[in-house]
Amino acid sequence: MNLIALTRDEVGSDARVTLDDARAEHLRKVLDVTPGQSVRVGVIDGPLGTGTVVSITDSEVMLQCHFEERPPARPRIDLMLALPRPKVLRRLWAQLAAIGVGRIMLTNADKVERNYFDTHLLIPEIYRPLLVEGLQQARDTNVPLVTIHRRFRPFIEDDLDVLCPQLTRFVADPTAARRISDVFRLHSGPPASPDDGRVLVAVGPEGGWNEFEVKLLESRGFQTVSAGSRALRTDTACIALLAIIHEAVMGRP
Amino acid sequence: MNLIALTRDEVGSDARVTLDDARAEHLRKVLDVTPGQSVRVGVIDGPLGTGTVVSITDSEVMLQCHFEERPPARPRIDLMLALPRPKVLRRLWAQLAAIGVGRIMLTNADKVERNYFDTHLLIPEIYRPLLVEGLQQARDTNVPLVTIHRRFRPFIEDDLDVLCPQLTRFVADPTAARRISDVFRLHSGPPASPDDGRVLVAVGPEGGWNEFEVKLLESRGFQTVSAGSRALRTDTACIALLAIIHEAVMGRP
Repeated sequence: MNLIALTRDEVGSDARVTLDDARAEHLRKVLDVTPGQSVRVGVIDGPLGTGTVVSITDSEVMLQCHFEERPPARPRIDLMLALPRPKVLRRLWAQLAAIGVGRIMLTNADKVERNYFDTHLLIPEIYRPLLVEGLQQARDTNVPLVTIHRRFRPFIEDDLDVLCPQLTRFVADPTAARRISDVFRLHSGPPASPDDGRVLVAVGPEGGWNEFEVKLLESRGFQTVSAGSRALRTDTACIALLAIIHEAVMGRP
Repeated sequence: MNLIALTRDEVGSDARVTLDDARAEHLRKVLDVTPGQSVRVGVIDGPLGTGTVVSITDSEVMLQCHFEERPPARPRIDLMLALPRPKVLRRLWAQLAAIGVGRIMLTNADKVERNYFDTHLLIPEIYRPLLVEGLQQARDTNVPLVTIHRRFRPFIEDDLDVLCPQLTRFVADPTAARRISDVFRLHSGPPASPDDGRVLVAVGPEGGWNEFEVKLLESRGFQTVSAGSRALRTDTACIALLAIIHEAVMGRP
């Protein structure tokens, strides 16, 4: 835990907060804090800051917080992901929040099994703590915006441009000739507009998108790119792609 | 399973192989193969190829194989990793083999807990099947060479240059000012020698390398680089770094 995540409700108008749960336990037993010591804190969907330990009891830790003026910037990459198997999805939530995504859009596809949508891992009360776990790892406060889209075509045709107006759109395919870094070399000027500075990447099901799905994505401006010819498991592929795109976006002049 | 992995012993001089284990089950039940159909095969630490189904019984599948002349190229990145918690190591084995590494050197460090070395996940009989699982995912046959180094200093001073003579060496640190892509932009000419075309990346323990360790690594030519300022869990960090370096190495002119 590299950050103690707080909710807005917990922070009083005097910027004090009293913790009595696992976070208090972490402060006392793992970080072994003493009064006067400072730790990194962050308000979920709010600013980062520091918390100075005011007092410690057997069950509670009180912090006096100082917050930065602005919340950290929202990560510039959005992810559209064909709903993976629950086992993979469980592993992904925290890792996606840690590596940094603005939005996570989980969608259906021909090769997504219907019963994947029944998993409890799509319930906000279940996945949100996993996202916050990832944010605490990476010292961010921007909870990715999560939406679930059970019908692929209406989602792409009607909703996608509203949720993600950005123009730079990739669909990952290990057989594609063009690599992500080739595309970024071509367009290495500064972004033309804030939306243009964002990137949307689509990752398909283990069996791939079908032909109709690829055509529909291409018709909406998605460029087929690869991150190498190795076929990766969905969770490995997501982390690899997001890492490469982050590096390319941040490495722009 | 994107590849049926075979051992040298299994393949007869007539390039036939008869399977009666989980691979036969996979061919019959998941791929639902019929005689005459071809599947991708690969000899572990040998060539890739195709296997044409000759016959199928309730328990066996016989394949007639055709192999490529040469084994696939060994991945050009080697990983030196401070031994992570067993839970993280378990997740990593298959993913590292899938994303592609030539060597995995697991090493001690000040912030590695001693008891991590007691895990059964360091026994070749346990980790090798996990590596092969990753190779089958990524369609590779190069089993990463694994070595375990319980003493950091003698390893770095005496053994590292023998195992990994390459000159391009990175040590990952989220606080570093220089990004990986900056370094590759500086050295974007073609590699001067085969060794120079390889990259070695060092990933520290969750708590970081200590000052002595960083100094020693720097004295052996490791450049401190970051893949962004977000602190990632060891497994996420390894995948992210390897993905970015693969992309940079492959994207070279």
